[in-house]
Amino acid sequence: MSESDAENPVRNLISGFRANPGKAKATFSVGTELVEGLRAEVNARQHTIVIDEPAVLGGTDSGANPVEAVLAGLASCQAITYQVWAANLGIALDRVTVEAEADIDLLGFFGIDRSVRAGFNDVRLQVALDGPESPERYRELADAVDAHCPVLDIVANPVPVTRVLVEPAAV
Amino acid sequence: MSESDAENPVRNLISGFRANPGKAKATFSVGTELVEGLRAEVNARQHTIVIDEPAVLGGTDSGANPVEAVLAGLASCQAITYQVWAANLGIALDRVTVEAEADIDLLGFFGIDRSVRAGFNDVRLQVALDGPESPERYRELADAVDAHCPVLDIVANPVPVTRVLVEPAAV
Repeated sequence: MSESDAENPVRNLISGFRANPGKAKATFSVGTELVEGLRAEVNARQHTIVIDEPAVLGGTDSGANPVEAVLAGLASCQAITYQVWAANLGIALDRVTVEAEADIDLLGFFGIDRSVRAGFNDVRLQVALDGPESPERYRELADAVDAHCPVLDIVANPVPVTRVLVEPAAV
Repeated sequence: MSESDAENPVRNLISGFRANPGKAKATFSVGTELVEGLRAEVNARQHTIVIDEPAVLGGTDSGANPVEAVLAGLASCQAITYQVWAANLGIALDRVTVEAEADIDLLGFFGIDRSVRAGFNDVRLQVALDGPESPERYRELADAVDAHCPVLDIVANPVPVTRVLVEPAAV
């Protein structure tokens, strides 16, 4: 590790994973149950996220809904990846804000029109940066972020998902 | 609307969207900013979700991290879709719990190995149901859920994403 890596926490992290690539493999898990109506309490390690649906969709609006949780993951992942990759590339960044917006047609969710997908048709991100660097450096940063942001990859590209169903025990 | 639809809030909702399909089009949006280090506060309408990273990734672990937020959206969307589609199909369902687990290799996020994707390699769902119906009915329900769950579609299939960058104003 060079002296400048030692002074840069992100480069320090990267040096550690480069030396022990097996340590970069991680598994995340959450669990949830409907507690009343459509209100779900989700546990992620010691953290709890309350998810519900707006009244127009049959919930009591006690929390963001599931697709808003995905957008929260996407927007925050973008912001964090800007911060981490700015440090990695040595680009000064004073502030990053991210807005994420997505369209959905509920005819898909409710099975009313089979030609309509259940999820988002379209996602739009607006990222605003503040800092002293040239526009070219910030465009370089944005390209690096879009190539390395985990949630952007999860949303934009296919992910293999398998599901196991545990049926009620026979009585 | 038949009398049984009037007594079933989900079928009632569906009848409404079938009569006015344009009302099924919705846009969701969130906004976020890093407030300190990697801690992001995300606003979704009147709701706030705090996102952070564990210490091992350079955060202060004051909230779930972005990929856990995606899993929270996925697990809660599955649970809610089971509840909604059980009502739609007239299948009695007393309880649903969902666990979601996903693997990620951070060599992708940190750009250490270009052959490693940034997002999840694999997502596993375990859904446990309780209720008085036959196993066949619950398998029918699970198939309907997997065909109509918005976040499952978002994670499993590609979604078009566009990004606009607002650079610092020239000084």
